[in-house]
Amino acid sequence: MNTLIIHAHPEPQSFCSAMKDLAVATLQQAGHSVQVSDLYAMNWNPVASATDFQQRSNPDYLVYALEQREALKTGSLAPDIAGELDKLLWADLLILNFPLFWCSVPAMLKGWIDRVLVSGICYGGLRFYDRGGLAGKRALLSFSLGGQAHMFADEDAVHGDLEPMLRPLQRGTLAYTGLSVLPPFAAYHVPYVSADSREEILEQYRDYLRRLDTVEPLAFPSLADFDRQLQPLNNRERVPA
Amino acid sequence: MNTLIIHAHPEPQSFCSAMKDLAVATLQQAGHSVQVSDLYAMNWNPVASATDFQQRSNPDYLVYALEQREALKTGSLAPDIAGELDKLLWADLLILNFPLFWCSVPAMLKGWIDRVLVSGICYGGLRFYDRGGLAGKRALLSFSLGGQAHMFADEDAVHGDLEPMLRPLQRGTLAYTGLSVLPPFAAYHVPYVSADSREEILEQYRDYLRRLDTVEPLAFPSLADFDRQLQPLNNRERVPA
Repeated sequence: MNTLIIHAHPEPQSFCSAMKDLAVATLQQAGHSVQVSDLYAMNWNPVASATDFQQRSNPDYLVYALEQREALKTGSLAPDIAGELDKLLWADLLILNFPLFWCSVPAMLKGWIDRVLVSGICYGGLRFYDRGGLAGKRALLSFSLGGQAHMFADEDAVHGDLEPMLRPLQRGTLAYTGLSVLPPFAAYHVPYVSADSREEILEQYRDYLRRLDTVEPLAFPSLADFDRQLQPLNNRERVPA
Repeated sequence: MNTLIIHAHPEPQSFCSAMKDLAVATLQQAGHSVQVSDLYAMNWNPVASATDFQQRSNPDYLVYALEQREALKTGSLAPDIAGELDKLLWADLLILNFPLFWCSVPAMLKGWIDRVLVSGICYGGLRFYDRGGLAGKRALLSFSLGGQAHMFADEDAVHGDLEPMLRPLQRGTLAYTGLSVLPPFAAYHVPYVSADSREEILEQYRDYLRRLDTVEPLAFPSLADFDRQLQPLNNRERVPA
């Protein structure tokens, strides 16, 4: 199995960075190939802009997704994007490893999503969810946060349930491109816990990574349940997958 | 009323940019003061990093939120952050104006959130939600997207309901800092509609902006309903707000 880890933390000695190192070691020990994109170390450019295309289909008006599709055909994606896209296409498993900033990824990692999940290959037209361009691959969020598990336990919790907080990432991004999304690994309360507790969290993460092949992916929509206008079909109209 | 518009679109001629221009004109005509941070035009740096602090409380290990708190006290926030924070504190109304990228803000705007919503002033400790540092101010998402309204109509829609998709932004970010969040303005299907339809959307946005004072904010948790550990209180224990 080929694994790509996208890591984005501004402190190389952070617990989150230790999670990344542990994932590399654990997966390699199990015989898998691993590549890491350490976005801060790479000085990754997170800003989607006109300079992402070495030639433009329409130089007068930027429609980003449209230029992505054209640049794919002409091989004119910016080299940093093309390099990351190659790694993504190589991978069977994508791990996004990050500290939760404002209930989402840091801008650095959002800019990897914005620029590397290229229209025309990762998704496009009616190719999304179970028909997405990355179908057959798996993905996983692994993140550290200051909050505690009970704060995201259910809709009565102070921040509500974890699922809606992660929905733009797990459903709107990963599942949208066809990836099978495995349950997230959340390292709670990290800045406030003891060294022993941190070791326990790392041990839990190691265990989780070792049994990935037995883990059931999360459920997301199937396009067979929607018509061409993406209106939900009633049960009688539903097309078998 | 003072309004700050944070605008992040890579194409200055975009519909989304027209929404920003319309908001400026409409609010100024109503006698309000408006400032705009056009993040692409400013070449805003979206990457939270150690260089955001002109002096460090702990130069050997970066805890971003902790350094924010210290930098506030010593006046050593990076000048671009301090400038945006001043605008935010000046504002009575914050509008985030952007194209929806992956069911969220573009990295450019995420980096404004990551860097400018400074711990120690916008939130911190038990100062969040209705006790957040920005309580008394209002905020609003205004965004353009390719999808149609029925795709986010409810939990049976192809992308589920709009609220969970916007939860990290509306609840996890804006409401978290104490802002009263007004209902979002979503400009649906923009790349695919006629010029007439675009004019209609702008007209709807103008109408919405003119009646902002009559608009009821969205509901979010009150910390009075949670104990010191942020466990939900049962009804008998609840403290009147």
